[in-house]
Order: sequence, then C-alpha cells, then structure tokens
Amino acid sequence: MVRALHNPLAVSLGDPAGIGPEVIAKCWDNRDAFGLPAFVAIGDPRSVAAVWDGPIEVVDDPREADAAFDYGLPLIQLNVPHADIPGHPSVGGAHTSLDALELAVGLARSGSAAAVVTGPVAKEQLYAIGFQHPGQTEFVAERCGVSPTNVVMMLAGPTLRTIPLTTHLPLAEVRSHLSSSLIESRGRAALRGLQRNFGIADPRLAISGLNPHAGEGGQLGREEIEIIEPAIAALAAEGWRVSGPHPADTMFHARARANYDAALCMYHDQALIPIKALHFEEAVNVTLGLPIIRTAPDHGTAFDIAGQDRADPRPMAAAIRMASENAAARAEAA
Amino acid sequence: MVRALHNPLAVSLGDPAGIGPEVIAKCWDNRDAFGLPAFVAIGDPRSVAAVWDGPIEVVDDPREADAAFDYGLPLIQLNVPHADIPGHPSVGGAHTSLDALELAVGLARSGSAAAVVTGPVAKEQLYAIGFQHPGQTEFVAERCGVSPTNVVMMLAGPTLRTIPLTTHLPLAEVRSHLSSSLIESRGRAALRGLQRNFGIADPRLAISGLNPHAGEGGQLGREEIEIIEPAIAALAAEGWRVSGPHPADTMFHARARANYDAALCMYHDQALIPIKALHFEEAVNVTLGLPIIRTAPDHGTAFDIAGQDRADPRPMAAAIRMASENAAARAEAA
Repeated sequence: MVRALHNPLAVSLGDPAGIGPEVIAKCWDNRDAFGLPAFVAIGDPRSVAAVWDGPIEVVDDPREADAAFDYGLPLIQLNVPHADIPGHPSVGGAHTSLDALELAVGLARSGSAAAVVTGPVAKEQLYAIGFQHPGQTEFVAERCGVSPTNVVMMLAGPTLRTIPLTTHLPLAEVRSHLSSSLIESRGRAALRGLQRNFGIADPRLAISGLNPHAGEGGQLGREEIEIIEPAIAALAAEGWRVSGPHPADTMFHARARANYDAALCMYHDQALIPIKALHFEEAVNVTLGLPIIRTAPDHGTAFDIAGQDRADPRPMAAAIRMASENAAARAEAA
Repeated sequence: MVRALHNPLAVSLGDPAGIGPEVIAKCWDNRDAFGLPAFVAIGDPRSVAAVWDGPIEVVDDPREADAAFDYGLPLIQLNVPHADIPGHPSVGGAHTSLDALELAVGLARSGSAAAVVTGPVAKEQLYAIGFQHPGQTEFVAERCGVSPTNVVMMLAGPTLRTIPLTTHLPLAEVRSHLSSSLIESRGRAALRGLQRNFGIADPRLAISGLNPHAGEGGQLGREEIEIIEPAIAALAAEGWRVSGPHPADTMFHARARANYDAALCMYHDQALIPIKALHFEEAVNVTLGLPIIRTAPDHGTAFDIAGQDRADPRPMAAAIRMASENAAARAEAA
C-alpha cells in the first residue's frame, strides 16, 4: 500500500453482476505493484466473494480502511436482499449499484472519503428501476448540487488528456450542437479543473478544429472561423492559455502533446480515438467541475466475461491512482 | 546500402524550394542507419547542393544508381533554366517538380525504376501553372491510365494501416458522400492492394462506423445499418475477410490492431488521427490500385523551414523503405 496524504478513497463496486467486483478485488491483490493507496469498496461482499478468494474486511467507515487495508479488501456492506450472479444483470443488482454510488458520493461530500471512484453500471437496468440520468456523471453532479451542463468529462492518460465537447450524438448532429458559448464554458471548466484537480497553476488548453486541416482557412468548412476562433479569443481575453483551432490529425503525436495540458475536442471520436489508441489500458474518466473528486475506469460492465477471472484490473487501478493524485493536489492547494 | 532484389527506386525531389531535396539527401547520408536500398533522385542538382554539402553522382539511368550509390547521391538531372532558392516557391520550381514527377512515373512504368517515391510539391504553385489534378496521386493515376476513383490512398505505419474513404471535405458533407458502392469499391481496391503490394494472401479489412459506438444499433445514427453493413455483407459474400462496422474509438489500440491488416475509415480525421498519434514520423502515404508502386512521406513542402537543416528525414526514409518492401513483395509474387 502507498501511504497517502489524504483519507481513503470510496470505490463503488458498480453492477454486482459485472466485472466491477473482480477488478476492484484484483486492485487490492496488486496494491503494491499498482502503487495504490488505501481505499474502501462499497457494495455487496457476496458479489466479490463470488469471483475472488481473497480476504474481505467489512468496515463501517472509510476511516477504518487504512488499518484494515493490510489484511484484506476493506468493504462497506450494503443491505442487499439476495446475491447476484456474475454475468446475469438484474433489477436487484441495479438497485445495489445505485445504493453504492449514492453512499460513495455521500462519503466524499462529508469528507470522510477523499474521492469517489465508480465501478461500471448497466444503464439499461438502471433505467428499468426509474433512474433518470444519462449516466453516473450526471447523477453525481446532481447529488453535489451542480448542473450537469457545468461538469466536464475528461479522459486522462499518462501523456494525453482529452475532453469531448459533444458525446453521444450522431456525427451529422454534431455541427448543430456546437456554439462559441459551449466551447467557452466547457473550456473554462476544463481549465479550472486542471488547476484544482491536477495542480497545474497556469494550464494550457489546445482546442481542435471540426473539419480536416481545421477548415484550411474556410475552404473545408467555416465552423472554425465562425464558432471556434471567437471562443478561443474570448478565453484568451480572460487570460487563459488557449491555442487553436488545431488540425485534429496533427495534435496528438508526442511533440504536439508536449505543448498542452489538455485537448478540447469537438466530438466523441475526435477525443476518444487518440486517448484509446495511445492509452487503452490506462485511460481514466475524470469528472471536472464537481466539489468532490470523481474518477472511473473507461470501460463498461462487460457482463460477457464477468466471473471468468478474465477482466483486466489496470483501468480500475489507473482510476484509483488518479483519484489519489487529484486528492493530493487538492489537499496541497487547500 | 541494403542490397535489394529489385531495380533502384526513382525519388522525385518535389518542389526545389521545399524540404524535399534536404530530406532526400539526408536519406542518402543515413542510408545504412535507415536500411535503404539504392535509389536515384530526380530534379535539379542545384536544389540539393543549396542545402547539402555531400557528393552528388549525376547519372542518366536508374540502372547506374546501384554502382553510383556507394559514392554519392545518384541524381538524374533535369534541364532547369534557373536555380530555386530554399523557402521561396516559384512558378519555375513548380515546373521542375512536375517534370521530376513525370519522369519518375515514366521510369517506373518502363520498369527501369522499381517504384516511385514522390517528394512534397506545392499545390498552389502547381495550380498556377495549369496543373489540373487535386494532387500528385491523381496525376500518377492518370499517367498510369487508371481512373482516380479506382486508386486508394493508404497511410501505413509499423503497426497500423488506415484508408480514409473521404478526404478533404467539411465534416458536415461527409455523410452525403458515403455510399455502399463507394465502400465496396474502395474496400476491394484496398484488399487487392494488400495482396499485391504487401504480399498478404488473405488480407483482413476492418471497417469503421461513422457515428460514436458505430451508431449503437441505430440509436446514434443509422448510416451503419443503411450504408456500411450492406457493403460489408457484399464484400464478405465475395469471400473477402472484412469486419465491422467497428466503433472507431476502440479499433486502434494494440490488441484491436492485431485483428486486421488495414482499417477503412469513413472520413479524414478518423483515419489520420490514429496513424499520426501512433506513427507520426513513420507514416507513409501509399497509393494502391496502380500498375506501379508509389509511396510518399506524409508531410508537405514546409517552406518555412527549408534550407535551415531542420527537416526530419525519417518520414522520407520510411517512404523509400516501404516502396522497396512493396517492390520486393510484387517481385516475389510475379
């Protein structure tokens, strides 16, 4: 275990029938190799025991996790009527995953946990029990009293951080969702997040173009001139270090990446292609703009391989490590 | 020098005021370190002498290049009225770059050169002298008697090859240029090119989706269902090994790349972001569908740094090496 300068982290197991319990248990197994600080899992211990033979230390409070972490996986137990079966999502499991998320957020808000790391949930099951949010991010934002439009999803790996300005839209609809004000507000939230969570005093944000060659002076599209450039000028006028619009194809090689701390991209694949090409096993989903720290591995429940001891714990380990680093940066600034 | 099983390669210098002469001369300088076979440069020797102090061996025919290559940079001299100045593009330089390209293609068509590698040209200058093609690729296709619609531009690096189905279009216009028949014809040309140029007997082509998550079953766009899937089915019915539509963000990490020989992508940045993120200095532009072999480095004339000894020769070296490998694969198959 790595001794951290902050309280233990709260890690929700996610859907008990998915790979969340397995990868979190494997993180405890490999805590030294992965360089992980103390954390406490939240969920049904039976979902861990079903896929893992190691010791579980049931605790009542994250503060007990520091001492327990040497002996077993610290876990705050939820009251769950029946055990779930790996690979078989259920309505009961959706309730459990939501209860775990709710408790993890509460512990972080009260300060007894230094950050929240969320295991993967099954959205379809959550919708079936009346969950009203597009995903965990928006739920966490609401519980923190922050409008979902003011939080920013960042994908962060060892040498690249990207932010998709738009996400789950057909490509043909991206254009109609872009505006200078959206770029400005997300850009500002991203820059403040780099300061608060990553301890970068004067962060540099690179903003991509929408079109090939960033529109080539208007010959390949005018969105750069009409929408993106004015937003960059507005952010620069506030004193932020912003650059662009950059041609997206030449922004992500090693030399280019050295020139910025994060890249703000216009659409889903523009942001996710480079981060996953370069850092597939280490890309962490970080939510910026919250009063608490929240990270998550960038993968789903993977019900098809749950319970088969095949899940790769490295993305979850990267999410736990980044939550710890973010917590240390905030503690230092406070 | 690497002893090749084929005739020397013809390398056009490109625009004499650009970085072409410099990077080609540096390739000769580093021929052993880069593992390069004999090649002959084509252009004005003064454009090389202006930026490089090494020996130039003027020859009349590529066949002389094998013997000359040990002593200096073999070069077929064009008749050029006045010397160009590095960094200062001119109409005269555009004529020189076009003459070099024309001669290189002729030498490859006649078989005395095993392949053509093209140095970077300045399109604006070429248009000014009446050049009617979008770029060198289409010019080469015409000289070879191949319709430009039947040639395929592939970007190839050590662990990834990608093909953009559409290129220099505003992102908003991509959708209207996609069709099943375009995917089929380009896919077929790509697969045949992998066989002929890369010696892959039963090549595997991965085809991307257009939308995030490849449309997620129609929820994030219907182009996958209506356009891409029928094309994949048609190619599969011909016996080709094609897969997809794949979510573009999860197709370019190392494990995913191991499952295909080339990726056919729907638009410019989808193909160029991953290849340049992974292989910026080694990405080679390969034209498939021609009777001859043609490669090029994936960079421009870079007039702003010409003549300053700052140009990186690695992309040109990669283009020369790949042309040689393609020539060897064709020779073996013949």
